[in-house]
Amino acid sequence: MAKDKRTAFFISDGTGLTVEAIGHSLLAQFQDQHVEQVTLPYIDSTEKVQQALQRIEKAARESGLQPIIITSIVSDKIRDQLHQSPALMLDIFENYLTPLANLFGRDPAQTVNVSHGIADNRRYSERIDAVHFAIDNDDGRRISEFEQADVILLGVSRSGKTPTCLYLALQFGLRAANYPITEEDMDSTTLPKILRPYRQKLFGLTIKPERLMQIRQERRANSRYASKEQCEFEVRQVEQMLRRAQVPFLNATQLSVEELATRLMSQAGIERRID
Amino acid sequence: MAKDKRTAFFISDGTGLTVEAIGHSLLAQFQDQHVEQVTLPYIDSTEKVQQALQRIEKAARESGLQPIIITSIVSDKIRDQLHQSPALMLDIFENYLTPLANLFGRDPAQTVNVSHGIADNRRYSERIDAVHFAIDNDDGRRISEFEQADVILLGVSRSGKTPTCLYLALQFGLRAANYPITEEDMDSTTLPKILRPYRQKLFGLTIKPERLMQIRQERRANSRYASKEQCEFEVRQVEQMLRRAQVPFLNATQLSVEELATRLMSQAGIERRID
Repeated sequence: MAKDKRTAFFISDGTGLTVEAIGHSLLAQFQDQHVEQVTLPYIDSTEKVQQALQRIEKAARESGLQPIIITSIVSDKIRDQLHQSPALMLDIFENYLTPLANLFGRDPAQTVNVSHGIADNRRYSERIDAVHFAIDNDDGRRISEFEQADVILLGVSRSGKTPTCLYLALQFGLRAANYPITEEDMDSTTLPKILRPYRQKLFGLTIKPERLMQIRQERRANSRYASKEQCEFEVRQVEQMLRRAQVPFLNATQLSVEELATRLMSQAGIERRID
Repeated sequence: MAKDKRTAFFISDGTGLTVEAIGHSLLAQFQDQHVEQVTLPYIDSTEKVQQALQRIEKAARESGLQPIIITSIVSDKIRDQLHQSPALMLDIFENYLTPLANLFGRDPAQTVNVSHGIADNRRYSERIDAVHFAIDNDDGRRISEFEQADVILLGVSRSGKTPTCLYLALQFGLRAANYPITEEDMDSTTLPKILRPYRQKLFGLTIKPERLMQIRQERRANSRYASKEQCEFEVRQVEQMLRRAQVPFLNATQLSVEELATRLMSQAGIERRID
């Protein structure tokens, strides 16, 4: 741990993904603070908590700054151990299970990882099938399956279609295909013929030409593909095409994959297939 | 909203993914309670909060049960509006920004979505490249790139390799390839030749034959591929192969994709490439 650098520990008895997400969104409100972030997943035994505590005390000692702990641990026993640390403790379960228990008139189950939907076969299959669908239907590879798609993303090459489709599949179990608008398609600003039957499923991604150029330069520096003129031309043509065909679209320039996926769903009114 | 069914609203000015994750893990501790779960993302204006409030009051009225709100809204103004609702309010930012502000001696930025790493080009590229890598190297498609892989997953068909690779790419920016152990490979229990140069990067996924059979039956009912004998044979051979070659492995039978990815990383000591 660096000296004079505070550490935030995200500690969970499961994957740690949730406390990590909470930590990121909270710390993002204090971006001038340089906080080292450490995720400690699967802290589900007395031994592991002891090791974690040693790491936390070390961080406190070496930095001279009070560490932060953001945690969601189900077991009271393990949680109590963790509370012996010198850190500022933000304990999700401690803060929120009690009000919920009062509301429901029940004690929490105190079973770890039930939240991960273990052996939830339907959810598993939906997810896996959606992922394979996204791969098979990436980059216009298999138009024959567009019939079964929940959504078909359109856009120029490198506008973020592929990661968005895969995120939609993994997170929401949606069957998302994507189709790259090629240069032939751009000769006109009418929708490519093969897409017309699926107009209701189409959703466009566009992007600022400067950003597109930047992304493409990283891949093929100084190519025509990555040139200012080409990027400007493609974006202009595709945006006209989307407007003419009245296909809804988002500008991906400043959005993360998570934002693209969730904004797309609310804008197009697409419901998730898995929780 | 169903009568006598309580509703939990996950309300955010961003994607809602974090409060949703918190909600799921909290409510999973009360599984006998049938709670309808509704995510309301991008609640970032007075108008949208008003609409949300109406929905919440409607749920309360129709069910006769107090709703639950789990929320992370940055703006004090919008958050205060939301607090007018009759729901049980679990407000992440309200509870945790104040202690952090005190610790840092700063007020929170109150800027929405900073947490999404907008225009974080490095992170964006790492992620996108990792996703394309996973697709190009799915199912042993392009062994030539194994050299660049952070990890290469091995296992029988349908053991969960592909979704795990894509999750590793999207969530952690890792370059994850996967190689299906084919029937020829199973004639012996030694590692396929082409994999031997990459032994240090190999990680196995195995699965209970009964579960594998179930998954395969859903795809090709009554096929040899999905038969009890075949599934048992393949799992036995692959597990022997992994043990002989001392390749670490996980049993995927009861694990979610998130768990497979995070356990694999800690077991193999693989560090994430993006936060």
